[in-house]
Amino acid sequence: MKHFTSVDDIQDLNELIALAKNIKQAPFANKKIGENKILGLLFFNPSLRTRLSTQKAALNLGMDAIVMNLNTEGWALEFEDGVVMDGNKAEHIKEAAQVVSQYCDIIAVRSFPTLTDKEKDEEEQVISAFKKYASVPVISLEGATEHPLQTVADALTIEEYKTVKRPKVVLTWAPHPKALPHAVPNSFIKVMKKADVDFVITHPEGYELNPEFTKGVTIIHNQDEAFADADFIYAKNWSNYMDYGQITCKDPSWTVTADKMKLTNDAKFMHCLPVRRNMIVTDEVLDSEASIVIAEANNRTYAAQAILTKILDHGE
Amino acid sequence: MKHFTSVDDIQDLNELIALAKNIKQAPFANKKIGENKILGLLFFNPSLRTRLSTQKAALNLGMDAIVMNLNTEGWALEFEDGVVMDGNKAEHIKEAAQVVSQYCDIIAVRSFPTLTDKEKDEEEQVISAFKKYASVPVISLEGATEHPLQTVADALTIEEYKTVKRPKVVLTWAPHPKALPHAVPNSFIKVMKKADVDFVITHPEGYELNPEFTKGVTIIHNQDEAFADADFIYAKNWSNYMDYGQITCKDPSWTVTADKMKLTNDAKFMHCLPVRRNMIVTDEVLDSEASIVIAEANNRTYAAQAILTKILDHGE
Amino acid sequence: MKHFTSVDDIQDLNELIALAKNIKQAPFANKKIGENKILGLLFFNPSLRTRLSTQKAALNLGMDAIVMNLNTEGWALEFEDGVVMDGNKAEHIKEAAQVVSQYCDIIAVRSFPTLTDKEKDEEEQVISAFKKYASVPVISLEGATEHPLQTVADALTIEEYKTVKRPKVVLTWAPHPKALPHAVPNSFIKVMKKADVDFVITHPEGYELNPEFTKGVTIIHNQDEAFADADFIYAKNWSNYMDYGQITCKDPSWTVTADKMKLTNDAKFMHCLPVRRNMIVTDEVLDSEASIVIAEANNRTYAAQAILTKILDHGE
Repeated sequence: MKHFTSVDDIQDLNELIALAKNIKQAPFANKKIGENKILGLLFFNPSLRTRLSTQKAALNLGMDAIVMNLNTEGWALEFEDGVVMDGNKAEHIKEAAQVVSQYCDIIAVRSFPTLTDKEKDEEEQVISAFKKYASVPVISLEGATEHPLQTVADALTIEEYKTVKRPKVVLTWAPHPKALPHAVPNSFIKVMKKADVDFVITHPEGYELNPEFTKGVTIIHNQDEAFADADFIYAKNWSNYMDYGQITCKDPSWTVTADKMKLTNDAKFMHCLPVRRNMIVTDEVLDSEASIVIAEANNRTYAAQAILTKILDHGE
Repeated sequence: MKHFTSVDDIQDLNELIALAKNIKQAPFANKKIGENKILGLLFFNPSLRTRLSTQKAALNLGMDAIVMNLNTEGWALEFEDGVVMDGNKAEHIKEAAQVVSQYCDIIAVRSFPTLTDKEKDEEEQVISAFKKYASVPVISLEGATEHPLQTVADALTIEEYKTVKRPKVVLTWAPHPKALPHAVPNSFIKVMKKADVDFVITHPEGYELNPEFTKGVTIIHNQDEAFADADFIYAKNWSNYMDYGQITCKDPSWTVTADKMKLTNDAKFMHCLPVRRNMIVTDEVLDSEASIVIAEANNRTYAAQAILTKILDHGE
Repeated sequence: MKHFTSVDDIQDLNELIALAKNIKQAPFANKKIGENKILGLLFFNPSLRTRLSTQKAALNLGMDAIVMNLNTEGWALEFEDGVVMDGNKAEHIKEAAQVVSQYCDIIAVRSFPTLTDKEKDEEEQVISAFKKYASVPVISLEGATEHPLQTVADALTIEEYKTVKRPKVVLTWAPHPKALPHAVPNSFIKVMKKADVDFVITHPEGYELNPEFTKGVTIIHNQDEAFADADFIYAKNWSNYMDYGQITCKDPSWTVTADKMKLTNDAKFMHCLPVRRNMIVTDEVLDSEASIVIAEANNRTYAAQAILTKILDHGE
């Protein structure tokens, strides 16, 4: 594996999940592989799980991790080509990406979408520029359109908790007070298409995601109907994609409640976190045995460690 | 030791101080104990000594330390139960504490008091929530009402510098331009009650601390009288406790001066730092041989290392 | 070497460059030297290259590196003596420097000039205070008047890329939208005076640097004339020194262009970065084979590692 910025960079999902499971059994077994290597974690946005779990994954492999909040600790970056840099941007991404490549063996970057400039977001301006100019592998810590590290953890979690060979997995939209990105649902959809699951998406009409991602997936606008016989409920808010970045629905009837969970086949409840309690999901569900959100967060470490292992083991 | 968030968590002060003294003699002697373990340091407030000394203590024990400024680098946290999270708080402490517990073997937290909401402060809302929801040990890096790591360093320093078996220790209030917390004096009082010292508190009338802490301690409102024959002067400002969080006195006659120090038995001068020069204490005193504030700061490392050792050695 | 805050701290430039070249050949060969030692990196200003390369240098030597953004993560520092500290400054540099010395084996500090108070800047108020009060070695990560770590990397880069025994090196001013410090040109001039090069400075009239630095150096106000037969073009903006900290020229004819480079002896283009594209230098030059700015940035690691090695090997 060279870069890891999209679910598309996974060649064999089953093999990757198997690797992550093995790592989870013996997380310190491979500490030589990262010796004298540095993972640079560059954040343009807040992070808790990704920041901690990816550092832990690097340490587990014997790497050193250096974290930078680029906006506040470094220089404002210019991403446009050919510009006369006479404004507020002190450094061009061309130099920044090449320079960081001199100091770090792998560069990991978090850069959320603007949610105002659809074209720029879909180009993955920041992550793409790092891939273009860096001379070392680049990992996405959540880009504008995908969050593939989260998704590997999700797939590992479903693999661990499934009780039938081919579980029914439902991705459900839920209300939220702020406009959120599409990265998590996009990557989740991509990975569910590769997995041996019966996959359904449910959301209010008008909340269709980018059809490039959802093509071929069953979409049901009646949440109750979608929940029937589900083995996993994966809740997530996203802002409107067609009316880009807007909030056009806050319907509280889409909140995942205990009554809704009764429609399922004793489904497990999943969410990438952070989660808004009593908006996305009620306390009752989140505090019940059905919720596996903490185990899911724990798997972030092993997902990241599997990806780092594959990159360090290049050739694969 | 499980958690360490209060002086009350110390079972045997003498044994702890003896451990810290041993560690100071050979700080790298126990580097296996922390191998493959991560200390997470979570800051809601500024820090210099605590931040550096606790990281150093972890490194000395072979641990890795990961630092996060939660306010700026993570998500705003909700601490109330049952809330519909439709405001600015993105994550509930229930998830945050459990999640951090997946990545860190010990969680250390700094969270200052509001100084406006006495009830919330006395509940130690933040530290208590971490203790309640985390699945790993929690250390206070200064909470709303106690700063026990500072106090262990103070006790170690007094042990090292005392020239009589039972020294007289005076905690004196001193003026300050800003409203300061009660955590340092509270913890210092608790530890002095356990130590073999003659302990006196002096402060202006009306500046009584929480009587739960001062119960049984001699309080003198005449600073000169209190200083007579003292072996240690421990200066500290705190804001008014009864008129909660207010500054009702800035009387410069309470500043510790060279003349005041002459009333003592060649006392050593102590302060937790940072210290406001010529407010709390004059340059003359702070720059004199009597001042042991730097040695006291140095002992922060060994205090933290003793606490980490006891937590890693659980069973004790 | 005790401190390293100026090019003047280099006793033997050739020997230092030879050491850096050796380190570059085998960067992990000396990992025992830093064992159980901590480098504290204290930033008052943004940094990318310095922050990452100095951390990497420390890790390569087996040290641990602890980074603090003092302005936002610590306490506001007072630098004046004898002050009654009743304002916004919570801690005096006297305590801060001594305290950090308890936790770190070497202290590295970045503190840019005010560009408004020439006297304070020329006193190197912050770096000088750390040197005065710290009990451990102090390294400049760029002070008000010098950036010696950059300059060691520059000298190493010239040594690596020169094709004649005594190359011609031209330091040229170039336009910039913001008022920039003099630290990089000052240190570069100092080191070029020690190196076996034919050294020329070119800048618009009125943009003279501090004559203490430029004394004895050829200064030419005609950039084309200066570029003739040059082997290295080192571009850098600085604000006006005489009209202190002001921008009195933005003349775009001083931008380094491909046509200008044709006047040289196939010169290499150097810059400390970050660089404003199409202000300092055109895309065409920066993206050409002549540009060695990335190699120059890479050498920051080995320059820092050579300095850390000399400090850890004290006696030298």
